[in-house]
Amino acid sequence: MKKKIIAVIGGKSANQDYYDFAYQVGKLIADNGHILICGGLGGVMEAASKGASENGGFTIGILPGFEKKDANPYISIPIVTGISTARNSIIARTCELAIAINGSYGTLSEIAYCLDLGKTVLGYKTHDVKGIISINKPEEIKAYL
Amino acid sequence: MKKKIIAVIGGKSANQDYYDFAYQVGKLIADNGHILICGGLGGVMEAASKGASENGGFTIGILPGFEKKDANPYISIPIVTGISTARNSIIARTCELAIAINGSYGTLSEIAYCLDLGKTVLGYKTHDVKGIISINKPEEIKAYL
Amino acid sequence: MKKKIIAVIGGKSANQDYYDFAYQVGKLIADNGHILICGGLGGVMEAASKGASENGGFTIGILPGFEKKDANPYISIPIVTGISTARNSIIARTCELAIAINGSYGTLSEIAYCLDLGKTVLGYKTHDVKGIISINKPEEIKAYL
Amino acid sequence: MKKKIIAVIGGKSANQDYYDFAYQVGKLIADNGHILICGGLGGVMEAASKGASENGGFTIGILPGFEKKDANPYISIPIVTGISTARNSIIARTCELAIAINGSYGTLSEIAYCLDLGKTVLGYKTHDVKGIISINKPEEIKAYL
Repeated sequence: MKKKIIAVIGGKSANQDYYDFAYQVGKLIADNGHILICGGLGGVMEAASKGASENGGFTIGILPGFEKKDANPYISIPIVTGISTARNSIIARTCELAIAINGSYGTLSEIAYCLDLGKTVLGYKTHDVKGIISINKPEEIKAYL
Repeated sequence: MKKKIIAVIGGKSANQDYYDFAYQVGKLIADNGHILICGGLGGVMEAASKGASENGGFTIGILPGFEKKDANPYISIPIVTGISTARNSIIARTCELAIAINGSYGTLSEIAYCLDLGKTVLGYKTHDVKGIISINKPEEIKAYL
Repeated sequence: MKKKIIAVIGGKSANQDYYDFAYQVGKLIADNGHILICGGLGGVMEAASKGASENGGFTIGILPGFEKKDANPYISIPIVTGISTARNSIIARTCELAIAINGSYGTLSEIAYCLDLGKTVLGYKTHDVKGIISINKPEEIKAYL
Repeated sequence: MKKKIIAVIGGKSANQDYYDFAYQVGKLIADNGHILICGGLGGVMEAASKGASENGGFTIGILPGFEKKDANPYISIPIVTGISTARNSIIARTCELAIAINGSYGTLSEIAYCLDLGKTVLGYKTHDVKGIISINKPEEIKAYL
């Protein structure tokens, strides 16, 4: 099995539903030996990182700001870009698959970049954009790993 | 009257409807003494630049590539970024108002960035994103200039 | 005569010598019908912008931050990049000629980008880098416009 | 011991002297449990990545282009930025220490960014820039890890 880099994208804050979903997605990415990439901050990003990290996975945080301490505690490798939301394009270019969990306009920009690059995007209660494959349970990502 | 920088965003190719609409939008931006910013390439970007340029307006092209010759012939100032589609965030940050005309996922990323920054986005036959103000005629932009 | 985009690069603060030199360089760029590009902030950038602006010239500021109000008062077009010092590469890609006036490490990165791209760099009391053409008076730039 | 992210910066091509030096530096970074970050391409970047990878280390390649296959074979995590040489600022922001080995203007821009951020830069037969600490043997980096 070859390791893939899988993106989890979503908002800086997350309700319990989104947090739990993201955690399980992160866990599944780790359980299947893949690497998680995300924006490195809180909310959905933190939940997915926690799920991966607590299950032996490896996590990359593509941080928008200037300090590695901005990263949530579950990031293995903080990449400090300093380019703010322009870093969304780097997440899209680096991943092989993206899972979007809810999220606002920042998440929408990441979805758009991923689809523009022809990457598969799975979505849970997120934007209604043509090309997203809607999922209802974390386990559904397994078919795409 | 203070000059504003107004973005026109849309695809690299455009049918006659979109081309004509973009041309008229560019013309109105120029007629009202404002500055046009766009991605600097063809299609909707070219049409809007042409409409502005042929009516005494000033146009900025935020180019994704490495050569100023990538700019359409109606660009007054080609900004050569070399950062590919990450330049979409620069268009969004620089403009005070954006008009989206049709467009695919690249345009969607620009819409998302604009809305994330709280900028007003007017849309003509473009993505159905909450927050976009739909317009049907170029003249409707005048209320927002 | 074809308009060129000419960069003036240098520090955010400037002593009287550097300020005066930058002002005269900006004036000469304007007097010769060319466009000034710079980082848009204070010091050498402001002096050159002032010199161009007060003599009928046109000035572009490639701002590192998030607000157009960061621009010095002599910037005609503030480009709001939000990508911090990564914007230094955009200045280098966009200009056809660069004049470096003193400056610290930020200026050095711009010099390096310009030389990497094969752009001519004129330098006044700046870093000692192979490839820079040293000048002692503002008028010396005229031979390169 | 806490893992640090250490940058090795240098040219896309390398003579035997630079290649061997970079390999040993990469090996030392790995031997001491740290993580290597570099531009991900050939020459000095490849040599350092090989030295780290063949000795159990972990390597991050901050790629300028659009394809992860641009990475040299010793990169553990290819970050695909698509922002060309603007990615040099990301290497500088992410590392805690940089070792410059020879290199041309691209390397000079990375040195400048690192010094601008207050990062320690060790240099082997590289640019003569104030602030670089000159080293003659790979082992000398150990004092800074």
